[in-house]
Amino acid sequence: MKKQLQLSSKGKPFNNYVTHCVGTGRMGLALQKEYQEHLKFVQDKIGFSYIRGHGLFCDDVGIYQEIEKDGKPFVYYNFTYLDRIFDYYIENNIRPYIELGFMPKALASGDRTIFYWKGNVTPPADYNKWVDMVKATLTHLIERYGRDEVIKWPIEVWNEPNIGFWAGTMDEYFKLYECTARAIKEVDPDLKVGGPAICGVDTENWLHSFFKFCRDNNVPIDMVTRHCYMAKQPKIVGRYVYQEMFDPSYMIDELKMTREIMDQYDIVRDKELHITEFNSSYDPVCPVHDTPFNAAFIARVLSEAGDYAQSYSYWTFSDVFEEKGIPAAVFHGGFGLVANYMIPKPTFYTFEFFSKAGNELIYRDENIIVTKDKDGRYCLIGWSYHDPRDGKTLDPVSYEITLPAEKAQYFSVTKVVGGKYGNAAQTWSNLGKPRTLTKKQAEILKEAAKPLRYDSKVFAKDGKISVNMDIECNHLVMTEIFPVNDMTDTYWEFDTKEFYGLE
Amino acid sequence: MKKQLQLSSKGKPFNNYVTHCVGTGRMGLALQKEYQEHLKFVQDKIGFSYIRGHGLFCDDVGIYQEIEKDGKPFVYYNFTYLDRIFDYYIENNIRPYIELGFMPKALASGDRTIFYWKGNVTPPADYNKWVDMVKATLTHLIERYGRDEVIKWPIEVWNEPNIGFWAGTMDEYFKLYECTARAIKEVDPDLKVGGPAICGVDTENWLHSFFKFCRDNNVPIDMVTRHCYMAKQPKIVGRYVYQEMFDPSYMIDELKMTREIMDQYDIVRDKELHITEFNSSYDPVCPVHDTPFNAAFIARVLSEAGDYAQSYSYWTFSDVFEEKGIPAAVFHGGFGLVANYMIPKPTFYTFEFFSKAGNELIYRDENIIVTKDKDGRYCLIGWSYHDPRDGKTLDPVSYEITLPAEKAQYFSVTKVVGGKYGNAAQTWSNLGKPRTLTKKQAEILKEAAKPLRYDSKVFAKDGKISVNMDIECNHLVMTEIFPVNDMTDTYWEFDTKEFYGLE
Amino acid sequence: MKKQLQLSSKGKPFNNYVTHCVGTGRMGLALQKEYQEHLKFVQDKIGFSYIRGHGLFCDDVGIYQEIEKDGKPFVYYNFTYLDRIFDYYIENNIRPYIELGFMPKALASGDRTIFYWKGNVTPPADYNKWVDMVKATLTHLIERYGRDEVIKWPIEVWNEPNIGFWAGTMDEYFKLYECTARAIKEVDPDLKVGGPAICGVDTENWLHSFFKFCRDNNVPIDMVTRHCYMAKQPKIVGRYVYQEMFDPSYMIDELKMTREIMDQYDIVRDKELHITEFNSSYDPVCPVHDTPFNAAFIARVLSEAGDYAQSYSYWTFSDVFEEKGIPAAVFHGGFGLVANYMIPKPTFYTFEFFSKAGNELIYRDENIIVTKDKDGRYCLIGWSYHDPRDGKTLDPVSYEITLPAEKAQYFSVTKVVGGKYGNAAQTWSNLGKPRTLTKKQAEILKEAAKPLRYDSKVFAKDGKISVNMDIECNHLVMTEIFPVNDMTDTYWEFDTKEFYGLE
Amino acid sequence: MKKQLQLSSKGKPFNNYVTHCVGTGRMGLALQKEYQEHLKFVQDKIGFSYIRGHGLFCDDVGIYQEIEKDGKPFVYYNFTYLDRIFDYYIENNIRPYIELGFMPKALASGDRTIFYWKGNVTPPADYNKWVDMVKATLTHLIERYGRDEVIKWPIEVWNEPNIGFWAGTMDEYFKLYECTARAIKEVDPDLKVGGPAICGVDTENWLHSFFKFCRDNNVPIDMVTRHCYMAKQPKIVGRYVYQEMFDPSYMIDELKMTREIMDQYDIVRDKELHITEFNSSYDPVCPVHDTPFNAAFIARVLSEAGDYAQSYSYWTFSDVFEEKGIPAAVFHGGFGLVANYMIPKPTFYTFEFFSKAGNELIYRDENIIVTKDKDGRYCLIGWSYHDPRDGKTLDPVSYEITLPAEKAQYFSVTKVVGGKYGNAAQTWSNLGKPRTLTKKQAEILKEAAKPLRYDSKVFAKDGKISVNMDIECNHLVMTEIFPVNDMTDTYWEFDTKEFYGLE
Repeated sequence: MKKQLQLSSKGKPFNNYVTHCVGTGRMGLALQKEYQEHLKFVQDKIGFSYIRGHGLFCDDVGIYQEIEKDGKPFVYYNFTYLDRIFDYYIENNIRPYIELGFMPKALASGDRTIFYWKGNVTPPADYNKWVDMVKATLTHLIERYGRDEVIKWPIEVWNEPNIGFWAGTMDEYFKLYECTARAIKEVDPDLKVGGPAICGVDTENWLHSFFKFCRDNNVPIDMVTRHCYMAKQPKIVGRYVYQEMFDPSYMIDELKMTREIMDQYDIVRDKELHITEFNSSYDPVCPVHDTPFNAAFIARVLSEAGDYAQSYSYWTFSDVFEEKGIPAAVFHGGFGLVANYMIPKPTFYTFEFFSKAGNELIYRDENIIVTKDKDGRYCLIGWSYHDPRDGKTLDPVSYEITLPAEKAQYFSVTKVVGGKYGNAAQTWSNLGKPRTLTKKQAEILKEAAKPLRYDSKVFAKDGKISVNMDIECNHLVMTEIFPVNDMTDTYWEFDTKEFYGLE
Repeated sequence: MKKQLQLSSKGKPFNNYVTHCVGTGRMGLALQKEYQEHLKFVQDKIGFSYIRGHGLFCDDVGIYQEIEKDGKPFVYYNFTYLDRIFDYYIENNIRPYIELGFMPKALASGDRTIFYWKGNVTPPADYNKWVDMVKATLTHLIERYGRDEVIKWPIEVWNEPNIGFWAGTMDEYFKLYECTARAIKEVDPDLKVGGPAICGVDTENWLHSFFKFCRDNNVPIDMVTRHCYMAKQPKIVGRYVYQEMFDPSYMIDELKMTREIMDQYDIVRDKELHITEFNSSYDPVCPVHDTPFNAAFIARVLSEAGDYAQSYSYWTFSDVFEEKGIPAAVFHGGFGLVANYMIPKPTFYTFEFFSKAGNELIYRDENIIVTKDKDGRYCLIGWSYHDPRDGKTLDPVSYEITLPAEKAQYFSVTKVVGGKYGNAAQTWSNLGKPRTLTKKQAEILKEAAKPLRYDSKVFAKDGKISVNMDIECNHLVMTEIFPVNDMTDTYWEFDTKEFYGLE
Repeated sequence: MKKQLQLSSKGKPFNNYVTHCVGTGRMGLALQKEYQEHLKFVQDKIGFSYIRGHGLFCDDVGIYQEIEKDGKPFVYYNFTYLDRIFDYYIENNIRPYIELGFMPKALASGDRTIFYWKGNVTPPADYNKWVDMVKATLTHLIERYGRDEVIKWPIEVWNEPNIGFWAGTMDEYFKLYECTARAIKEVDPDLKVGGPAICGVDTENWLHSFFKFCRDNNVPIDMVTRHCYMAKQPKIVGRYVYQEMFDPSYMIDELKMTREIMDQYDIVRDKELHITEFNSSYDPVCPVHDTPFNAAFIARVLSEAGDYAQSYSYWTFSDVFEEKGIPAAVFHGGFGLVANYMIPKPTFYTFEFFSKAGNELIYRDENIIVTKDKDGRYCLIGWSYHDPRDGKTLDPVSYEITLPAEKAQYFSVTKVVGGKYGNAAQTWSNLGKPRTLTKKQAEILKEAAKPLRYDSKVFAKDGKISVNMDIECNHLVMTEIFPVNDMTDTYWEFDTKEFYGLE
Repeated sequence: MKKQLQLSSKGKPFNNYVTHCVGTGRMGLALQKEYQEHLKFVQDKIGFSYIRGHGLFCDDVGIYQEIEKDGKPFVYYNFTYLDRIFDYYIENNIRPYIELGFMPKALASGDRTIFYWKGNVTPPADYNKWVDMVKATLTHLIERYGRDEVIKWPIEVWNEPNIGFWAGTMDEYFKLYECTARAIKEVDPDLKVGGPAICGVDTENWLHSFFKFCRDNNVPIDMVTRHCYMAKQPKIVGRYVYQEMFDPSYMIDELKMTREIMDQYDIVRDKELHITEFNSSYDPVCPVHDTPFNAAFIARVLSEAGDYAQSYSYWTFSDVFEEKGIPAAVFHGGFGLVANYMIPKPTFYTFEFFSKAGNELIYRDENIIVTKDKDGRYCLIGWSYHDPRDGKTLDPVSYEITLPAEKAQYFSVTKVVGGKYGNAAQTWSNLGKPRTLTKKQAEILKEAAKPLRYDSKVFAKDGKISVNMDIECNHLVMTEIFPVNDMTDTYWEFDTKEFYGLE
């Protein structure tokens, strides 16, 4: 049964921050060629404005250095890799969304680390040295990239201090935040600082406490940052983590709740809310990330999240990532929009499609948005997701949509992701699940990763055009409809019936 | 109704010369950037061995030069453009199939020209000067590219002397051929020379006469060359030529006839037959060239032509072409495999698909070939064509094919051209038939030009695999079936049902 | 003997329009790959704003087309090549400086042509058809590239109507100018039109007559255009033209004279003067163009021309050029800044060096300019030229220049063209004067074409720095002096004497 | 005073293995973009056949993995990074010279590590697991790259077991060598294995003991490997190590001695000797590596080493290197032929020049080699080095060399490195010693890094040509002399005196 929609062209602004920011594996990985190729690819096709990841101060980037001089430790800062990484970002038209962390070993108060790559999560042994490092780094960045540029780079203090990423208490985090925020403003009062960068554990307590702390101590805060994941308890089997998901409305509710808490505090009421990480599962070996299910699931989030947050940074753009070790196979459940060998996953298209959405929202429900641009283009994005582990599948969702026409003729192009199309993990399975790929296999997978695509003419009738959209279970669909000038008449000798079936 | 085919793996060699040679617009166009981009694209995807076109000696390439010295004409040769063109070819891994012609104005005996670009088709005013030019050119090529290389470049004398491309008589052509062939052998006896390069007019008379002439006068001939087109009488309307086609068997019959005549003469009985031009229509503004009909129609030719000829050179690889003037629109009925803006046409895929055929032919009928490679890959190519101007369409042709399996598991990938897929001219029509393209339109057309593609797993049963092929009217289909090592078991913790529908 | 210059940092604006415009071979050549590679190279290194050449309306670009329809001629316009050419220009960040000409054969009133490539120079047979073509072309350009862009493209009517480029009289040119200028303004009043595009023959008469004509008939004119060459009578020997040159002051005087005449007419007094062609010799087979003499000679022009003209377009950027036929050897006396195989000639560096001049002119004489930028960089360019055919050579010109220092330390880098350096034609002669190049030879010549280059530290003393410049005969020299922050002290352990001679 | 050399064209084969192998920072660094760019650059210009470095089995490459399965450790191998690295090598036309080491943490018997990047140097806790890993890795490589390819990759067991790179005794190394060598031969008897990979400490004892051990136990050995450095005791100051050098004859003597010991043992007498590492200093922060001194010093080694060893692998091709931490400045005394930002150092040219040496050695002394090719090209390389810390400098070494001429005319091209030319570290010092570079600075340094270059004609006289070579202290010079066909006469109208000084 088709839903009938008779839409007017009058909509409201579509709050769409889909290209604002994207997550990345640790900074040190940005030195890699494969990483850079993925980033270039993603920027060419989607074009994010900012990129955020961990590890700026870790020893593989190596900023903080101590050597002995005259028998005493002598501190200096090594920006060789930092400059190379940020140069790469700028070349790719993406700006750093700076996350200050984790702890250089020489500055650390303890040994606790996180991840395969062993990020030290302990508080600084000496807060003055930490502050000096922060200030030296920012000062260096301003010298190299210019003040006008660097004040556009938001700065977040640490990552998820409410769980194992921080070996200190809540108060210790507040101490870190305070001295860091003040240091940042000392370097330049126009630099933007935010926190508390928490994930969804004990959230309300942390938010209230943090806002009170900032308010009571007059600590600078320019934006509120937090994370949202939508996975239930994990089942760990070997290298894999298997999980079920909450509904995407879970995340929308979290955003609403955060915004409501913010509204209770003058200091943040009018500030931006940045979701500096989000995804379905929070685990980089959970199969969900490679699936069309995820593409449709995330689409639902993107359709509404912008009403509550000004940034939601998908964690992450690429499977060049090492938190749980080096990927043991091309498809392994990694976070990336792009798998290794530069193969786009279904969710890559969720971001590509939403980056093409019009700036006016004409219609939205649980499965579709209808948007429009000033130049008369319509952009429809549909999705349907269902976890098939219950052995069931959803019926296709079908729409017949009538839209106002300003032109006599339109060009409609549709792209479909799901099933046999744009589903590279399935093709990889068909190929026998090779761990690494030959050139030939990589080529096959790149081809396979493309959506189904077809186009057609649409003629207006009585000032309206009519389009269908059919969305199968665990599929993502986009239809763009462009107004067209038909020039057939300028070919006066053009006899369509002589064109072997051309329409 | 499906045809059932139970095939054994035992076939015969597939005589497949699809990548041997391809045609090109006049040599001077090879200087152009757009031409070079198309050539690179075609070589990357198909990889022809040779390229043949007109105009080597025309004044836009400018080899023959006369200036005044001490009051008398002084001849010299200018290889500036020739070297640039042939350097480009070599860089693109394609060798010249040299056609000697047409006539430099300063050497011509008359004014008659052919084409928008005005190739002079008159015999030389002075045969000695012609011979000198031929020898100087070949000598120069040997110096520049090395003898071992240049003796691999076949040399054809003139083009279609049996119609308006030659202002002389048959005897005058034989005179030209004789002095040219002898000159070539003087430069190096291992250089290969051939003719008579005729098209399908008065063919039998020309072939007999030519072979007798060579035999009786002991004139060198290393290969026989001729052309084959399959179009009926044209209807000319404005810039377009509308034509109906003979059946492809028309061309196969021409090849057989030619081979039979060759068999009557010792001097050519064991020589190669090179079809140095072929296509459906011989006119560069005939819409047929842009259609899926043509893709299927040409496929039928390619399925069998190699049994009778050792080369059949599709005329031409690119729409960078000016015989009837500068193309007035992206799609205009040009010969090219690739339209301007580097958009592959349906027939491009006919060549790409046949370039992937296996070297063993297991089965062939009027709609399909089934081939196999030593590495166990099967390659099936199917086609179905019908001129829809009678208002009819053919029913799909369907096969169920059983093939011997050497492995337990296979990977099958299918590509379909026709209808909504791989049919860029239709998308161009949907876009309103723009004459030139914006960047955005060019992008859309490049995407649209790709075939439909999908893949699947195939499991062997009782040492056999079973595959279906369904071929709609005016469609071209290829299915490749690769043996696969399934590695799923090496992921001991891999629980398929946890993979959200992955199969 | 050294000239001693004690300079203050206070200068005047340097009127430097060196990168405003550059000349090109006919439009049709812009389709070529070699042409495009040269253009990209020149734009990367020098970066011109506009490009101007002949042949927009010639039949190889093929805009004007007539076919028969219902027994009558039917006119249409083919923008296939025009769009490709202008797309290429825009991609290379260079804008068309449109020259309207020559005459499509189908529109021509006669057969007279010019050049190897046979540009028809006769007036239109039908001025209405000419005007229609101009309007259709401009309208198309506005549709494709946008009005805001196209109104930045100056439009010149015809080329050198005062000599053999125009088969009509002066009055007939004025007629052409008038109807064309009015047509342009009809398309958009903000489009800029200019003329009379004359060369230096009967100049004063033409200028006065043209300005009077425009004034008396109220004909639009937005800028005055003319050409300047500096060669004396030619001696023609075979393919070469040998010429002596006037002094560059000859051109400067021409500019002054033109400006003085302009000052006598209200309609052009405040308008820009565009030298839409200039060079030493006006002949594309005159050896002077390949020499270091020319580099120094043109430098003298560039040092002052901007005081009188707002554009001076060197004729031409590349040896991809066919006015006297296809180049018969790499070095052949062509106009280009870049020889074939993308080898920069000495004069290439004249333009590169002047493109780096500072915007403030501190000192200028017959052999040198001293300029400065806001960021404290000094840029000195020196030259010395002498035609050595009198068997003499000039002594080096030497300067010792004292400049105010704002920093304690400077970095000085010098580039020298002439003699053994940056003189590819000499290396080509050393290689035996090959007509076309092997890859190896092309590599050698590209390396050879680079200037001598060295750098050094300069320390300020009493707030001043002192630099030497020595300019040998037929050499061009540039010295750039950058202020530097010395960071040696931040390497506390750096012991210079341990660095094996590092200073 | 010039040395006069009258040379005949008769020489002996020049044993020149300069391009056989080159060293690299640890394998994991090969994932980096900067590393890959340097490698591509070096391969384009020099073209090494093999590359050798540490860290194949370290945890950043991550081959060896243990996870828990059913409560027990389950071993698997992760070739994700290994394949990527070796794919890159193959793409760059360089083959791995495999060094088996160091120890994965999960396999290690202890905690001892070496370098900033902490390579574990302890013997395996379980030799069976080590052997399994070696065999699995080689088996995988053969599957991926093919047996015919992989048997061309020499395999060396461990690195410098005679010093701190091995936490075991000599006997323990022999044990490791034996089980590893046998495992290799089990995988494929045609795989090549070698050792003992020692540096110059206790050399004679190690060589004798190792050869005896292999002989007595019938252990496979296909080539002998060792290292050679030429530095005296270091003085460590902050981040720098200052050292004086032995004379290069020190290394030549080491090679002779090694060869003499090899000659005493049947099992290695006819085997190749591979110097798998060599350089002046063995320390990556010793300024010598950045200097023209080093370029000349290493030239002396290259002129003779091939008489005693079949491979000598310069340690290393690039400053992408981390043994003593992340480089703290562009020039910091790193081993690389290429500094960061892809700036070639003087010693880069030593390798480039020697890669162009002819295969016939006509003359050799302490400062020069004269070589010749079959095509008649002469190649002369000269050098002169002196450690200037004694405040002295050597006089230039000058030669006047007479060589047999087969042609009437030659083309001579000379390149000079030293002083103001090809000395990027000096330019970097002139720029103020910036730690990281702006784009502009990187460009300046790349330009500065090029040698001085000039060319000239050389005319034969009495069947001989005469060339000069002048070599200043701490300079490197190459002169190539090519036979030339002078074509001036084919330009009959060419009047040299009209060419403005062209010779």
